Amino acid sequence: MSIPTVNPTPTSITAAFDLPKPPGVSWRVRSQQVVDYEVSMTRGLLSTSNSTFAHACGADGKRRTRCLVVVDDAVEQLYGERLRAYFSAWRIAHNWRVVPGDENTKQLDTALGLVDDMSSMGILRRAEKIVAIGGGVVLDVVGMTASLYRRGIPYIRVPTTLIGQVDAGIGVKTGINHGQHKNRLGTYCAPETALIDPEFLRTVDRRHINNGLAEIIKMALIKDSQLFDLLEATVASIDPETLADCGPAGGEILSRSIAGMLDELEPNLWEKVLERAVDYGHTFSPSLELRADPPLLHGEAVAVDMAICVALARNRGLLSEQDADRALTLMNAAGLPLTHPVFTAELLERALEDAVKHRDGYQRMPLTAGIGSAVFVNDITADELRAALSFVAHRDHRAADSDVLESAR
Amino acid sequence: MSIPTVNPTPTSITAAFDLPKPPGVSWRVRSQQVVDYEVSMTRGLLSTSNSTFAHACGADGKRRTRCLVVVDDAVEQLYGERLRAYFSAWRIAHNWRVVPGDENTKQLDTALGLVDDMSSMGILRRAEKIVAIGGGVVLDVVGMTASLYRRGIPYIRVPTTLIGQVDAGIGVKTGINHGQHKNRLGTYCAPETALIDPEFLRTVDRRHINNGLAEIIKMALIKDSQLFDLLEATVASIDPETLADCGPAGGEILSRSIAGMLDELEPNLWEKVLERAVDYGHTFSPSLELRADPPLLHGEAVAVDMAICVALARNRGLLSEQDADRALTLMNAAGLPLTHPVFTAELLERALEDAVKHRDGYQRMPLTAGIGSAVFVNDITADELRAALSFVAHRDHRAADSDVLESAR
Repeated sequence: MSIPTVNPTPTSITAAFDLPKPPGVSWRVRSQQVVDYEVSMTRGLLSTSNSTFAHACGADGKRRTRCLVVVDDAVEQLYGERLRAYFSAWRIAHNWRVVPGDENTKQLDTALGLVDDMSSMGILRRAEKIVAIGGGVVLDVVGMTASLYRRGIPYIRVPTTLIGQVDAGIGVKTGINHGQHKNRLGTYCAPETALIDPEFLRTVDRRHINNGLAEIIKMALIKDSQLFDLLEATVASIDPETLADCGPAGGEILSRSIAGMLDELEPNLWEKVLERAVDYGHTFSPSLELRADPPLLHGEAVAVDMAICVALARNRGLLSEQDADRALTLMNAAGLPLTHPVFTAELLERALEDAVKHRDGYQRMPLTAGIGSAVFVNDITADELRAALSFVAHRDHRAADSDVLESAR
Repeated sequence: MSIPTVNPTPTSITAAFDLPKPPGVSWRVRSQQVVDYEVSMTRGLLSTSNSTFAHACGADGKRRTRCLVVVDDAVEQLYGERLRAYFSAWRIAHNWRVVPGDENTKQLDTALGLVDDMSSMGILRRAEKIVAIGGGVVLDVVGMTASLYRRGIPYIRVPTTLIGQVDAGIGVKTGINHGQHKNRLGTYCAPETALIDPEFLRTVDRRHINNGLAEIIKMALIKDSQLFDLLEATVASIDPETLADCGPAGGEILSRSIAGMLDELEPNLWEKVLERAVDYGHTFSPSLELRADPPLLHGEAVAVDMAICVALARNRGLLSEQDADRALTLMNAAGLPLTHPVFTAELLERALEDAVKHRDGYQRMPLTAGIGSAVFVNDITADELRAALSFVAHRDHRAADSDVLESAR
């Protein structure tokens, strides 16, 4: 630019007055915000002999510390007593707030309730922390509130669902829904720490395990063909117990998913680059999630979206017939839906238009180029969407027929 | 920490499985967010031949661009037509929103109204900008909304008041009030650009000029004794015209204030360090601003707070009798109040307690150590507050008497 630039250093204060005015004088403000947080996978987080959680809360067991703890109703019911016993053992005074774990909680009213909690306990701005324990909903809304209160209070994430442990709970995005739009308001705000204890998965029901598997399959499809192979080989035996036990297969599935996710997020934490492979399966699914009745879980909507993407890639020759089949078969075997009556060609087109706004004017649509690799395209047409829909419908129909045959045998 | 740490790079995905589990495995996510924005002082921002503003909006005069423009009612009345003519000339299609410029606007409802504006115009996430033109109130609430919408839309600040041009309009803080607390919710979110046109000051009334002078005097007291000397020498002639004309004195006062402010902000944009010299005069004033009836302007409350701080420094021997007198005389000459009936010793104590929460457990109170230099103290006592109050009251009383004598002559 042509306007002379003066850095706002003490020496420049004097220099500024030697410059012609007009055209004027300008200063550049340059700085870097360092983000540095840890995602730890650790067993037995709630046993009082394990100091990991307490240290994350700033406690040493001697000095009294204080936290605001927010849990969802499932955590309250299953782990409330153990958590309170843990905090007491480590001399952590805790203000305790329970919120429902469903999507309706992800709204402004919940955030404002948490703000009132923080104000009434007079939480300190840096030394006292907020601890969110639960599924993606509670992590998202607590993260958003923590990032706004006095412009940011440190918080800790303890995801207790599979999807939280491999996806929502380990990144820096926070958000609430607003006016029929998912995550319309939110921030990028890293937690101080995210603590992953697979033991929590023992109490996650099958449907919610499958919900998390959708994001794990996504990670396999876009960047980790070894994870895909592992999932194919073990999907029949993946259940709450095998994941909670964290044996060779379960442990590798969890670790690979987390490592893959962080590997994608780290270089692009603030989404400066809008070509994000992790957006795979997240182009059409937001519209589906808002419209499905009865509601779909996030991962279920992602699966239906991924099925379309598999078909789009197959029809473009990016994915072989055989790999497309493997992908859809794996999703099916993971108990995930491939189709949904709400998904019409018209809805897909409108959903893509909305994604284009979110992606600043381009489709930037991730597709698989072979299993374990992603490319981005900007020229998906309405005809391709129709063809993809009909391919998946046909495939799903065949699968349903063979299920019927199977059970008739 | 003792848990082995694996970086989330592709190589580590494999390495992770060689590590013992339990105790577990952990990943560190490290990144840096680069912030880089420009504060430009330029004359004639609204003349259609000046491209500065248009370029900031992303326009080149050929291609059609689009912005959401938010102005306060004063700007609408005084500059609405010129602004719309400017945008038309540069082919910038503008969604136009007027909000009241008073403190009541700084609340959640205003932010949500702006969110609805953005949703209904379908603003793009990066290529289309939000432009805030007005006083501190509109800049704060627009900045907050822009930073939350889809986790951040670029925005531009055009402060039109003196306090906005030297303080609220050039930093990265956004905020709204909530539940009787000033700026209880907010973010750190840099504008793309802040554009300062002193011409806007021509239409600022005298009381609001004095409001801005309070922050300028603050800057002089904490870090710029030359600015203090300049203010002492010229305060009688500072008015909307001299500042808008931006002659030698007016231009130097504005430039020095802005440069000083940016110099303080730049190394501490996210307030990692809570010892902030720019918090001078901002320890007791938030409580005063919330309680004064009729309401005080921000700078007026800051002046009353600064008078206490001058007395505290004088009573501790940090400021000579003569310099304390110069400081209070300058504030008085700038038309600023030094006392307020709401300021009792009890209120000062409570306000200090609240500041301690905001400053994470310590007073971290900036005081002047001679004019143009700040130190931080953590041990102000209730007795000192009472002594400071009575010193200022006595001084103000004498000043009022001499005013009476003056006018009786």
